[in-house]
Amino acid sequence: MQLVLHYDGAGFAGWQRQPSERTVQGVLEAALARLCTEPTPVLGAGRTDAGVHATGQAAGVRVAEKWTAPALRKALNAVLPDDLWVAAAFEMQPEFHARYSATARRYRYLVGTDEQARSPFRRRWELAVRRPVDLERLRGEAAALRGEHGFRAFAVRGTAPAGDDHRCIVRDAGWREREGGLSFEVEANRFLHHMVRFLVGTMLEVGAGRRPPGTVARLLDADDNREVSSPAPPHALYLERVEYPRDLYLEHA
Amino acid sequence: MQLVLHYDGAGFAGWQRQPSERTVQGVLEAALARLCTEPTPVLGAGRTDAGVHATGQAAGVRVAEKWTAPALRKALNAVLPDDLWVAAAFEMQPEFHARYSATARRYRYLVGTDEQARSPFRRRWELAVRRPVDLERLRGEAAALRGEHGFRAFAVRGTAPAGDDHRCIVRDAGWREREGGLSFEVEANRFLHHMVRFLVGTMLEVGAGRRPPGTVARLLDADDNREVSSPAPPHALYLERVEYPRDLYLEHA
Repeated sequence: MQLVLHYDGAGFAGWQRQPSERTVQGVLEAALARLCTEPTPVLGAGRTDAGVHATGQAAGVRVAEKWTAPALRKALNAVLPDDLWVAAAFEMQPEFHARYSATARRYRYLVGTDEQARSPFRRRWELAVRRPVDLERLRGEAAALRGEHGFRAFAVRGTAPAGDDHRCIVRDAGWREREGGLSFEVEANRFLHHMVRFLVGTMLEVGAGRRPPGTVARLLDADDNREVSSPAPPHALYLERVEYPRDLYLEHA
Repeated sequence: MQLVLHYDGAGFAGWQRQPSERTVQGVLEAALARLCTEPTPVLGAGRTDAGVHATGQAAGVRVAEKWTAPALRKALNAVLPDDLWVAAAFEMQPEFHARYSATARRYRYLVGTDEQARSPFRRRWELAVRRPVDLERLRGEAAALRGEHGFRAFAVRGTAPAGDDHRCIVRDAGWREREGGLSFEVEANRFLHHMVRFLVGTMLEVGAGRRPPGTVARLLDADDNREVSSPAPPHALYLERVEYPRDLYLEHA
């Protein structure tokens, strides 16, 4: 079964189960153990960091035959806390694997540029920047991302293994204007640890005039992350969507 | 000086200073004591309950002559926590009194009626109702509110003193459709304790068909609150605006 999850990252120490922390995986597995009366592991498509939100995280779970997708969704939502919600559930083919079957992930990062972005109702969800950012410069940096590149420069040091595991195929990357600010949207086959936050942090430095245009292009395919800017904070980042091949979904007449 | 405040009510035990609770007034006074190096009491236009938000609470404060309104606003925002924000500050005539000078208060209550209202990104800010509500019935109840009435039926028992202190003049009251749900907006010269939440709780019962149309009209001018419905929860209520006469504002050329 595939679960599509929304969560407010503020109250979670990230996705991944940890012995003494409240995590999304941990809370979900505790709810499933209660419903299924046996340990029921959950596998996430991506391991979001502490504070990162999701409006479309995907997770895989195997439950007894008696559970239909709508019944499991309803039962879970009745016991989950207010900051975690199952938006949808789908029955999948047996070969479905939440992590390895995913063909694309999409993230969005929200930046607030107007005065009201500092209001508590917005700063909880977006990054309020004080100084002006140059949208054309941001767009120039993002344009360099499309295609296949090595992203070691934009990953936590040591987390990108040797070989080709630091390479990602970026299908879409761009800055868009929205009411009160901007958003960065990026879709790729995979992402390295902290990669979106490093990209946004670096692009915002270029946008604010503190680093020269062309910085992102220069860092692509670098051997290490020594020149990357600080990662942008997690509270403005959203895992929006995980895509799987159509034929992994079970058809219902 | 008048401060216009935004706050996320989730982390506050309401407006009013209390010895061992985190309250808006308490946090604001602690920040002012730090900036002004002497106790600086703050007076609010209204005492919002625990959990109630504000996007336009007004407060009065007297500070040393050296503070201009923009300087005080900037200094406060630099030391206040993320869930409390000074949106504006105005220099006022000496006779300005945050509570007694106010001529109107405006509140908004958000109700979510679609499936997505249960998402963590919305249920933190609005009331997700599961069963359908009849908008025309809600509108019929709200229409009865306009004008001057006694509101003892919609106040916490014992908090509306004898005499005419339970009377309020309602200038505007109505339900509006918005994306994903409804909002109730109400403006009056004053409000009793829990009054908006009691009104919304009662109207929603009529809207859901559990109480007959005309219930609000029947309870207006009642002697006690024995027939009121449970108050609607606080997390979906916003103090939006407090109005003062124009001539209480100091003019700046």
